[in-house]
Order: sequence, then structure tokens, then C-alpha cells
Amino acid sequence: MNFASDNSWGAHPAVLAALARANEGAVMGYGGDPVTARAEAVIREALEAPDAVVRFVATGTAANALVCAQMAPSFGRIYCHEDAHIETSECGAPEFYAHGAKLVTLPGTEGKLSPETLADALRAGAGAGLNGGLGAMVSITNATEWGTVYSPGEVAALAGIAHEAGLPLHMDGARFANAVVSAGCSAAEMTWRAGADALCLGGTKNGAMAAEAVVFFDPARADGFDYRRKQAGHVFSKQRFLAAQMLALIERGLWLDLATTANAHARALAEAVTRGGGRLLAPVQSNAVFAEIPAETHRRARAAGALYHLWTDAPADGLDPVPVRLVAAWDMPEAMVARMAGLLAG
Amino acid sequence: MNFASDNSWGAHPAVLAALARANEGAVMGYGGDPVTARAEAVIREALEAPDAVVRFVATGTAANALVCAQMAPSFGRIYCHEDAHIETSECGAPEFYAHGAKLVTLPGTEGKLSPETLADALRAGAGAGLNGGLGAMVSITNATEWGTVYSPGEVAALAGIAHEAGLPLHMDGARFANAVVSAGCSAAEMTWRAGADALCLGGTKNGAMAAEAVVFFDPARADGFDYRRKQAGHVFSKQRFLAAQMLALIERGLWLDLATTANAHARALAEAVTRGGGRLLAPVQSNAVFAEIPAETHRRARAAGALYHLWTDAPADGLDPVPVRLVAAWDMPEAMVARMAGLLAG
Amino acid sequence: MNFASDNSWGAHPAVLAALARANEGAVMGYGGDPVTARAEAVIREALEAPDAVVRFVATGTAANALVCAQMAPSFGRIYCHEDAHIETSECGAPEFYAHGAKLVTLPGTEGKLSPETLADALRAGAGAGLNGGLGAMVSITNATEWGTVYSPGEVAALAGIAHEAGLPLHMDGARFANAVVSAGCSAAEMTWRAGADALCLGGTKNGAMAAEAVVFFDPARADGFDYRRKQAGHVFSKQRFLAAQMLALIERGLWLDLATTANAHARALAEAVTRGGGRLLAPVQSNAVFAEIPAETHRRARAAGALYHLWTDAPADGLDPVPVRLVAAWDMPEAMVARMAGLLAG
Amino acid sequence: MNFASDNSWGAHPAVLAALARANEGAVMGYGGDPVTARAEAVIREALEAPDAVVRFVATGTAANALVCAQMAPSFGRIYCHEDAHIETSECGAPEFYAHGAKLVTLPGTEGKLSPETLADALRAGAGAGLNGGLGAMVSITNATEWGTVYSPGEVAALAGIAHEAGLPLHMDGARFANAVVSAGCSAAEMTWRAGADALCLGGTKNGAMAAEAVVFFDPARADGFDYRRKQAGHVFSKQRFLAAQMLALIERGLWLDLATTANAHARALAEAVTRGGGRLLAPVQSNAVFAEIPAETHRRARAAGALYHLWTDAPADGLDPVPVRLVAAWDMPEAMVARMAGLLAG
Repeated sequence: MNFASDNSWGAHPAVLAALARANEGAVMGYGGDPVTARAEAVIREALEAPDAVVRFVATGTAANALVCAQMAPSFGRIYCHEDAHIETSECGAPEFYAHGAKLVTLPGTEGKLSPETLADALRAGAGAGLNGGLGAMVSITNATEWGTVYSPGEVAALAGIAHEAGLPLHMDGARFANAVVSAGCSAAEMTWRAGADALCLGGTKNGAMAAEAVVFFDPARADGFDYRRKQAGHVFSKQRFLAAQMLALIERGLWLDLATTANAHARALAEAVTRGGGRLLAPVQSNAVFAEIPAETHRRARAAGALYHLWTDAPADGLDPVPVRLVAAWDMPEAMVARMAGLLAG
Repeated sequence: MNFASDNSWGAHPAVLAALARANEGAVMGYGGDPVTARAEAVIREALEAPDAVVRFVATGTAANALVCAQMAPSFGRIYCHEDAHIETSECGAPEFYAHGAKLVTLPGTEGKLSPETLADALRAGAGAGLNGGLGAMVSITNATEWGTVYSPGEVAALAGIAHEAGLPLHMDGARFANAVVSAGCSAAEMTWRAGADALCLGGTKNGAMAAEAVVFFDPARADGFDYRRKQAGHVFSKQRFLAAQMLALIERGLWLDLATTANAHARALAEAVTRGGGRLLAPVQSNAVFAEIPAETHRRARAAGALYHLWTDAPADGLDPVPVRLVAAWDMPEAMVARMAGLLAG
Repeated sequence: MNFASDNSWGAHPAVLAALARANEGAVMGYGGDPVTARAEAVIREALEAPDAVVRFVATGTAANALVCAQMAPSFGRIYCHEDAHIETSECGAPEFYAHGAKLVTLPGTEGKLSPETLADALRAGAGAGLNGGLGAMVSITNATEWGTVYSPGEVAALAGIAHEAGLPLHMDGARFANAVVSAGCSAAEMTWRAGADALCLGGTKNGAMAAEAVVFFDPARADGFDYRRKQAGHVFSKQRFLAAQMLALIERGLWLDLATTANAHARALAEAVTRGGGRLLAPVQSNAVFAEIPAETHRRARAAGALYHLWTDAPADGLDPVPVRLVAAWDMPEAMVARMAGLLAG
Repeated sequence: MNFASDNSWGAHPAVLAALARANEGAVMGYGGDPVTARAEAVIREALEAPDAVVRFVATGTAANALVCAQMAPSFGRIYCHEDAHIETSECGAPEFYAHGAKLVTLPGTEGKLSPETLADALRAGAGAGLNGGLGAMVSITNATEWGTVYSPGEVAALAGIAHEAGLPLHMDGARFANAVVSAGCSAAEMTWRAGADALCLGGTKNGAMAAEAVVFFDPARADGFDYRRKQAGHVFSKQRFLAAQMLALIERGLWLDLATTANAHARALAEAVTRGGGRLLAPVQSNAVFAEIPAETHRRARAAGALYHLWTDAPADGLDPVPVRLVAAWDMPEAMVARMAGLLAG
């Protein structure tokens, strides 16, 4: 019963089958192969963005950090939520790739930046002059680190503020599919139609082994990006095996199906939490549940072998209720989800 | 009547005289000259640190950033106050020099870190594992950005916590002389005897044109530092002109005399603020005054031609009282300080 | 008939089968899974290096560049052959990862550094003082970029010179298996017993989809390496899929079998070149053939659909003989190799 | 009798006088002062470049490296002579500042790049694709590291080739005044009229204590440069003291007078070398003499206390003739130059 992370779970059989199919004969290396071309095309179609530049890397940290380096100079300010993955969970990758750029972290309820907070921060940053560095970009995560989802309208509001200040908007979409199906909109509505300039489209948490797509909606923003990716060691020589994973997920809509399943699992868990006297810390809009659960429920779940993270920096001994994070994955057995729900509902 | 910054003021005549004296005949370049050797020795003596490695650069930002790069790997966490100069006023220099290291900024009243805050942050940082990066160093500023001064005991408490976590302590001493004379201790008591591992000893705000000393109390910590400084373009070919400035300040105690004068000016201004119905935002322990003054006083001072910074990110129109920063310099005419005090006292 | 690169070819069925096997249930992410533990152990066994630290990344450029960053400071000098992959083919990755370290490139016949050349260069570099940077490491490639192989004795000679100067020796082993079977020695004899301090053990050209192992023979050299890899975006969340590839290659000796096959293919091609009136530009000791072939042979091969690189920066029109590079892969059909040999032999 | 380097010599009295003059009252810091404004204007006038952006730093390494970072991305190729100061004498500063950009070093007689060599290298570099990085800029030094001078026509030929490839041309002018007076042209003819895009105009070797100007002829090339300089710790708070040095040199033509004197000293030494049976290794066109002198002459000069560098990496014992470098400075006593000439002439 592993609810620790969607990273703990596996790859979809279609992904493995695609790898086997791609493993035929000799092709051009470094992305000059037909699988890569097809995967790029399929993603452009899924995003209704025929001019977009699409490139593949194997990790979300690489995707995010490379985009940061592409958009921010060493003296740039990258505005993001204080709980953003790029701030909390990438070991300084954006700063390393962007040669010292500064993440300016902002508060926001339920993992989301508000337009007011962003506008104020951009104004203050501009006022800091040389001392503070040059405003370079805004980065949001969708679905967020708290399992919530920005609607297209909310994305547009933030993009508008960023653009007014001359800054592009980056969307960390490690769980992009979960956000799209949750919002009930198209991938285009969630991104470039709302003003997003770059998207990291996550495959790994969505059923791939290790594959992410970096998308620049305006090709001019991708100038030099292939060199940057190469210099970072993120260009695969046998790239067809990277592209094939994304192709398998995107080409017939599997990515959205899997996200729908994972989101449904999370909702089932969330309902059980509430039934069991727990309290949700944020609305459950994607595949993660942040909640406080009664200590008794926590003990029972642990005793039953459930794995999940406590959601506190402080020592958890004696806490009641207990703050927890439960992450659902598309490949969890239904019975396992049901059993966990039963434990949570008490 | 310029109270905007001690940077607005000049160089002491003894510094200019020292430059003229150093300008005689040909010597070895790049620090192989007798003036440099003498200046290094004099600083070691002033710090009672015969084994310390002393090097000169021209700016405080260079000094701080080079020390950060020396002590922190690219994946390091540098713990500091949220108002630290390295965070707010160096355009990301520490992150640039340390190739992406992350400044972990902590709150603290009156510009000072408390031992509890630091201990908690180190604990949380250690718990973040690979995600958060590796704890690398702790940096404090003395005198602080709020004009307050850590006592040797306070330094020792922070150094103890840092050392317990295996991290060295860096002191940004852009206004180190002001701190030392304020605390009434020796330079040694304020630094290595209290556990500081590296000191940036500021000359520029203390009467030099542009000169700072970087001091590593344990020579092993300076391994490779000369290469680092060279690669950064901070090794002067005619280094005697850099060293001569520090020599002039330190060798006969001028640095402490000038700091004493500047601190006294600030105290005079602070007393006037209080007399005039203003309120100090932090104790005035060095050469800067942070205060709220009545709007009427502010208008009067501005009308009289007084220059100083408003101390707020927000628009200041209509504020009453008005938050301000007044910085005193050793070379302000007494009459000017008296006149400003008169304006502030109302 | 693709002889352009071993990167053009595929993955071994055992590798794909291992991926499928690894795709079972939920495990700890980021390397905390049993497949990773097993793969690391198997490599330590293969190298007879029970204390070695083994880590996985997906590309050879990442492996090399991360080792360079681990061993060289920003002001370091990295000594290598002028045709080294790290110099010619990684888009500046070592310099980027090591924050500006300088590759000092040295000549050497048939892709190999001679002890004399290395010793002279280290001496000259030491004499350059601050101007030239600090000697940091020596990097060699085995098998080399010219398809030749350093014997254990040759490695030991270079390692001895490096160590005498206080520098570690790195071996870029993108085609390490090819070198080992060619030299007829053990992996240990080729590396740590000869004095190598770090090895990049290539899987990708050896039958993996995308997998390389970084090996530090002295664990102390790996301090902080996990953070470095994480910050670079080269830690996979579902790392079992990276480790499984290496495990499949190493655990039952498949890596050596595949290299033996590829080397044999290359020898067959080399013999055909010679029979056909061509001339080998370097001894064929691994899986690459560098040769000049008659223009007529070249036309015939191209007409038959053979793909391979011309080996000259200059325009090739009208050249006779024609310099070419032919690379053999373990999964080339025997018939294809025979057909190409027939074309070359004329 | 110090002929080791122009760095060994001092600052012109006019420079010191300018510092004293600048040391009056309070001004805006960080370059917002009237001395800085005046110095920038005077340099624009001297270069007949009313739109140029002019900024000051204290060292030539900083000037060159900041320009490299401004013009080259991390994956950029910077083409330069193999003896260029940026390659041999800056400890990797350009690579550090440009985050890993690669110096592509080219041969060339007497320290100069030929148009053919440059054109060939740009062609080969473009052919290297992602592997080799992206062509970013061409850098030349004038006067060169071998004391020779590119004429405006030679600069124009190189600039034309660079521009054709889409690359800007940078001129390292650590001894720019020496080059200009040697060529008998204007500063404009030597730079932007010949196609140079950026100039590092050296003050330090020309009579300043430590001052260099960075000039971008097209203001668009300077976008963000102030942030870059600030992040590098090369923005002086009391910048008037940096600007005053350049102002003193440039404003009444002193820079050209001093260079004329230094060049004349070098010519006198060169004539003495020839008279004494020595051989010039390069034409003496600025203030440096590269020559082979009879071993007997060398012994005599050393015995008389003359300091200068041997110009060989190899051990010099027993060499006859002896390769040496003699550098003249504007402030060498005439009698000293005459005495040295006498020793050289035998």
C-alpha cells in the first residue's frame, strides 16, 4: 500500500511495448530518428501548437532547470511559489543551470500564486534595481505541489501580469495531465491560449519510465536550446527510446486516461478522509491528498502497512491530528485504494 | 546633507597619502610587493591571528561572494538573515560565484539571527536531503544591515550551532570596525575567538576608496583561493594600490577612530529622532539609524536638502510617520550632523 | 548498412526484458529500490572493487562531465587528448559542469596520450601559476576515440605521472567493455589496479538504451556526488529502470560478450579494408575502424547504401583515398558485416 | 632595472591628482556621480562613438571576461589566438564568467590571427554542430601578446569574416593606446570603423592604478551588462575613484602621450638588441620586445641587475641565444632605458 509518491509506481505496458517497437534496426542518433519526429509531432498536435518546439529529456528537474536557464540570465530573478518544486525539491538545479539566477519565492494559499502577490513582487523586484537582479521569468506548477489546479483563467491572470512586466510564464507540468483532466479544458486552453510561454510536460509520473517534454510555444524562445540540452548531458544518443515513451502516452490519449484514473483514486481517498473525521488541507483537484487525519486512523493505516509521507517539518510524535500526504497513481490496484479508503474512513 | 549611504562619502587623506607613497619605482606585480606583504601582516596583527590568510579585493560584494564560493559547493545551502546584504544587495553574486548555491534566508528581529532560528533551520535543511541541497555555511553580517551589532557572545552562540552541524561561519564585516568599537571588544574577540571562520573586513565604508580584506583564520580554508580570486578578475596587477589603502587604515588604528566618529554621528542623529517624536526601528549600535519620523519632520528635512532613503517597499505618499534610513560617515562635517539633528529634533 | 555509429543501433533483448521485470509494483524512488542496489553490487563485483561508489546516469556526457565537476574546481586544468570526447563532442559539458575549468588538450598518435607528453604538460602547467589555473585531473578514454586501446601497463604509466603531480586519473569508458576484451585483462586490471581513480562505464554503446555507471574507486572521492547528480537533473525518480539496464548487461557477462562480437565485426571490416587496398589509420583494437579507402571503393559502398562518416574536416570531393570511420555494433546482422566487408575488399 | 612587466610600474601623477580632486564631498554611489559621467563622455569622444556604452572595472581580466560572458552563451565557442591573454593568463576567467564557454585557440605568427586561419576555424566549428558548441564571438588582442599591432585594415579583415559568420568581434585593448599610436590611426579607425563590436580599453598598463573601460559600440549589445558587472562584484560603490583614473588619462590625451613614450623605450631596446647581435622574435610595434639575445649579453644584463622574463617553457640553462621578453613602461627613467640599451648592445 504505497501512497508515498507517484514516482514509486511503474511504467504503463504501452510504454514498454513502444520501447520494444522502437528497438528495430539502425537509425540516426541524437534525435534524428523517426520515432522522435513522430513524438514531437504528436505533442504539437495535442497542444494544438503547430509551431511549438518540443524536446525530450528524462527528468522533470532537467526539464525545469533547462527552461530556467533558457529564459533567465545569471543575474535574473525567477518568481515562483515558495513551495514550488524548483525551489524545494531540485537541489538548486535552476540556480545551477542558470548560473546563479535567484528564485524569488512567494507565499500563496493551497500552493497557488495569487495575481496580487505576483504583481506586488514584480513591482518590488523592479524597484530593487541592480541590487536585486533583473526580473527574468515567472514559474508556476500545474497541478501544484499541493494537489490543486490553476484554471485556464487563473493561468491567464498570472500570465497577463508577467507579460505586462515583460516576463515569460513557465509552467512546470510534472502532473500536467492531471491538471488538464481536472480542469476539464484542453491542453491548449491550459497553456498557450492562457499565455504560457513554456511547458514542461511530465511523462514520468504519468506512466513513462523516465521521459518529459520541454515545449516552447514561440520557436524564437528555443534559440540555442539544443546546444544547452547537449551541454547538460540531456541529449540521448539513442533518443528514440526517450521519445517512444512520450509517443505511447500521448498518441491515443493514454496520458489523459491515466491521469483521470489517478485523480479518481485521490478523490476516493479524500472522501474517505472526510468521512473518517479528517480534514483536507487543500482541495483535492489532482492525484494528491493533503490532509490531517486522526492519530488513531494514522496508527491503524501504518499498522496495515500503508506508506505515505507525514507533511510536517516538525517531529510528528504525539501529533493529533496527523498531517499527511497521500499520492495516488494510475497503476494502483483498485482493491488497494479501496482498502486504504476503508482504513481512512475508520 | 547626504545621509543616503556611507558609500556616498570619500576616502581619508591618509589613504590618498598612502597611495602616493606606494607609487614609487617598480615592484613585483600581482601582490608580490612589499606594501601587500606589510598590509597583510598588519591585519593579521590587528586580528591577533598570526596564521590567518589575508587577501585583498576592491568590493564587498566580491569579498563575500568569493568566500561563499570557497566554502559552498554548487549544491550547498548558505544560511543567512533574510535582510543580509548577500541576499538583498549583491545581484545574486554569491549564487553566481558559488555556481548555483542556494541562500536559505531566515527571519530575525533587528537584523540578527537568533540561535533558535538558526538551529531549527539547520535541522530542517538536513532533513530535506538531496532535494534541498547540502548545508554548506552560515553567514552573518556585523554590524548588521539594521545597524545593530552582534556581541562576541552572540557570535559564539551562532558559531557553535553552525560548527555542531559541521558548517563554518562567515562574517560579512562591511562595517566591521563599527561593530568592534560599538561592542568594545577586540577584533579577535569578535571573530575567531568567537568561532568565526572567515571575515570580510571592509575598508571602503571605513575610509578607503575601494578596498576590502578577505580573512581565513584557518589557512586550510584558503586552499585554492588565490586561483579563485584570479579567475574572478579580482587580483590586481598593481596590487600595492589596493593594499596601501588597507594598510593606511589599519596600521595605526585609524580604522577604529573613523568608525568611532561615524558611530557617534549616528547616535547624535538617533537622539535627535527620539527628541523629535520619532521612533527607532532598531537600536543604533553602529553608524546607521533606522527610524520612523513624523511626516512633518520628513518634509522639513527634505526641504532643507537632506538626502536619505525611505525604508519601505510600498509607496511612501501620505505615510505618517515615515520610515527612513540615515547613514552616518566618518567624514561628515560636524556642523552638518548638528544641523540634521536639529531638523530631526524639531 | 549503418556503420555511422554504435549509437545508431539498438538495445539488447535482455535489457528490455529487465525493464519489464523491474516494472512490478511500487518501490522507493530515487535509487532506494532493490534493482539499483543489485546493479551497484554487480558492478562492484565486476570491478573487484567492494568499496567503490557506483552511480547511474543516462548519458556518457553526463557521466564524464559530472566526474570532471567532482574532481576539478572552476579554476582547474583538466588534461586530456586533443581528440578526447570531452573536448570534441560534449558541447562544453565538462567546462559547464565544472564552472569554467579548462581542458588542456594534448597531442598523441592514434588517440593515445604518451607518458612523456603528459609529464611535460603537467610540468608546464605547474609553471603557469595563477595565470594558467590549478592542475586538477587527467582524463583518458579507453577504448580511445581512434579505436585503439590503452593496455593496463599504459594506463598505469599515465596514472603514475598524474599521481606524482597530485592529480587523479579519470577513464572515459564509453566503450570500456570493448577495451577490456581487447586487452584480454580484467576490468580491475584496466582500472584501479592500474591507478584509475574514476571510471565512466558505458552501457549505451554496449547494448543498453541509455545507461552509464559512474564509479569512484575511493569512496572519499564521491563526497557530495549524489547532490551534484541531483542538482544536474540526472537522478531518475524511477531509477530502477536505469539500473535494470546495467544489471542486465553486467550480471552474467553479457557486456563482455557483446563487446567481443562488436570488436570481431570491426576486425572483419579492417581486414577487408586492407585486402581492398585501403590503409588503416590506427590499429583496430575495439569496434571502430579508421581507414583510408580507395575512392572507387567508397563510391561502390555508398552506392550499395552503406552509411558511415568521412573522417576529415576538409571538403571530401575528389579525395582519393577517402578517409572514413566505420563503427561496428554488437547487433549488426552478420550478413550485413559480411556484405560490407565484401564491398571494402573490392 | 625592471623590464619584467608594465604592471611593475606605477601610476601617473595626474591620476593621483585626479583621485584627490574626486575626493570632495558626498555624491551618489555606484556610478551615479559626475566624475563617472564625465569619464564615460570623454571616452565616447575619444572613440568618436557618441552612442557607445562605456563602463569601468578595475582589472583587464574582469573587463575581458565580462565581455565574453555578455557575448557568449555557456555553450558558445570563443575564437582567439593560442597566445591570447584570455587563454594563457586569466586562469579561466572567460570560461568561468561565460559559464563554460570554450576558447577555441588558433595559431598565428607574431601573435596575430590571419584571416585564412580564422575563416577555416569558423567553417570547421560550424561543421561540428551540437558536439562542438555554437560559434559565439571572435576575440583579438591589440597590441598583441607579442608586441605586434593589427592595423585597422587587418582588424577590418577579421571583423568582416567574423560578421559574415554572424559573430561579433571583441578587442582586448590592455595596451590599446600603444597600438593606436603605433598604427598612427585614430581610436575610431582602430575599432568600430574597422568593425570591432566591443573594446576593453586598458588604463592600468597605461598609467592608471587599476582602471579599465569596457566599451560596447552598439548599445544593444550592452543589455543587462550593468547587472552582470554588479553580480560579479565589479561595480564599485565609490566609483568616482575608478572613473577619475580613466578621466585623467583620456581627457587631455595623456594616454596617447604615455603610450608614445613607452613605445619609444621599446624601440630603443630593440635597436640595441639588434646592434648587440640579438634577433627580434617579432617586430617591435608597441612597448614589448621579444628577442633572442646572446647568452653573454644575458649574463651581463642579469649581473647588472636587470629584471625580465625568459620566454620559454623549457629550462633555460645553457641556452644560447636566450629568448627573453622586455617590457617598457612610460615611467621608466630615460637613463635606465639607456643603460639597458647599452648592456644589450654589448
